[in-house]
Amino acid sequence: MSLERLERLERHACFGGSQEVWSHRSAVLGCSMRFGVYLPPQAQARRLPVLYWLSGLTCSEQNFITKAGAQRYAAEHGVILVAPDTSPRGDDVANDDGYDLGQGAGFYVNATREPWARHYRMHDYVVDELPALVEARFPATDVRGISGHSMGGHGALVIALRNPGRYRSVSAFSPIVAPSQVPWGEKALTAYLGNERSAWKGWDATELIAGAQERLPLLVDQGDADEFLDSQLKPQLLQAACAAAGYPIELRMQPGYDHSYYFIASFIGEHVAHHARALRA
Amino acid sequence: MSLERLERLERHACFGGSQEVWSHRSAVLGCSMRFGVYLPPQAQARRLPVLYWLSGLTCSEQNFITKAGAQRYAAEHGVILVAPDTSPRGDDVANDDGYDLGQGAGFYVNATREPWARHYRMHDYVVDELPALVEARFPATDVRGISGHSMGGHGALVIALRNPGRYRSVSAFSPIVAPSQVPWGEKALTAYLGNERSAWKGWDATELIAGAQERLPLLVDQGDADEFLDSQLKPQLLQAACAAAGYPIELRMQPGYDHSYYFIASFIGEHVAHHARALRA
Repeated sequence: MSLERLERLERHACFGGSQEVWSHRSAVLGCSMRFGVYLPPQAQARRLPVLYWLSGLTCSEQNFITKAGAQRYAAEHGVILVAPDTSPRGDDVANDDGYDLGQGAGFYVNATREPWARHYRMHDYVVDELPALVEARFPATDVRGISGHSMGGHGALVIALRNPGRYRSVSAFSPIVAPSQVPWGEKALTAYLGNERSAWKGWDATELIAGAQERLPLLVDQGDADEFLDSQLKPQLLQAACAAAGYPIELRMQPGYDHSYYFIASFIGEHVAHHARALRA
Repeated sequence: MSLERLERLERHACFGGSQEVWSHRSAVLGCSMRFGVYLPPQAQARRLPVLYWLSGLTCSEQNFITKAGAQRYAAEHGVILVAPDTSPRGDDVANDDGYDLGQGAGFYVNATREPWARHYRMHDYVVDELPALVEARFPATDVRGISGHSMGGHGALVIALRNPGRYRSVSAFSPIVAPSQVPWGEKALTAYLGNERSAWKGWDATELIAGAQERLPLLVDQGDADEFLDSQLKPQLLQAACAAAGYPIELRMQPGYDHSYYFIASFIGEHVAHHARALRA
């Protein structure tokens, strides 16, 4: 566990609790990382379960904490929110000119190809290092849920499916459900994992669902006016994979909603409630 | 009324309604201006009252609409939200290197000194031109409330006090209540109105309150951990002026809260409810 250089960068009172931003030196990623933590008022009295939020392409730890309005619901339900950055960062971390590869676009995988393999291990960071830190240094239990948006929705689905026993609940907004079959995913998986498509299967929710060892409560919201719906997201592929595997999914097509945080803000309350039900159980 | 070049730049479904951003050519300001409009779901069936929101230093029309989370409450209460930019904008509009003067810092006054007088007439824009446009082109009634943050809290207070009969309710977060007595205000009023302090009295809420011709429901929230509390905000000066004038004010010091949008998000629901009560009456 790396508690090295753990430092609070921001602290703001918010809905009776505290929205904070911390930085630390990540041993897994080999760089300094930032994450947001919302501690609801109940955290002053007892340890609470944690909902991890994974953001989408180009995001940092800031987008979710400033735009989703999730703190209100976390305060209602007594859930801690943790929102990491979306990739390793820094001048010595590999990058790419595209918005959809490199810094801001870690895709929550463990890269095996250079120049990425040295730092890009966001799966292990999100699954192991970050929760270990959160549970050691904040009033958090080891009861966890995971959610995210777009690339982060992909991350939440894949991480929950790859790690049975670590999460009680999973949800996603506008997830990339089948990265092996869409341009964003093909570009990223080729770079991080190489050309061999068999290596991609462990990072594609529609491939993983058949072998799922547990049935987590799974909620997916998707706007039907999302500009990336047909080209990059294709939630029907997840629905079909769930149907084939007998994995229960609540997929809600939300009429008129797009890919923005206005969509997330409109339904994040229902996602926090979805997780809170499982996290309290 | 300037309906010239009215153009929708953004439209996002949000809490069952629509968060939009429009631009138009302002005749009052002599430049192109942007404003945010949130139309709650009830606006599809009938005309609704409008809550105007005035933002603080450095803000555009984006800050409030992306960070405050007010749309949820506007949808609950059936109130339209309108959030203009904080100054005239453009290459031919006077500016200053400081963040607290010029573009992004219009202070909601009508400037009388060059180089500002040509464009900087934010009072008239907010009071006359923008509502005329909103009431002509959106499903809005002429029933109005006004609120704002910091410089925009000053704007809301001054505009409500200067224009009896035009608003039903007023509120503010962390307002600059006495611009004549604090550095931000002294700098701006000197630039926009000149050195003669007698000209500032019409733009200072603590001066205007004595002559107030009506008693509007007035709610002010102020964080007691606000980094600008003692130097720039001084809400006790407004409280004293209200006491002297017999003007009812609900001033709430909120323990631990700072000057950020995390503070606004935490209490904007109560402000929308405050206005909704008056706007429905």
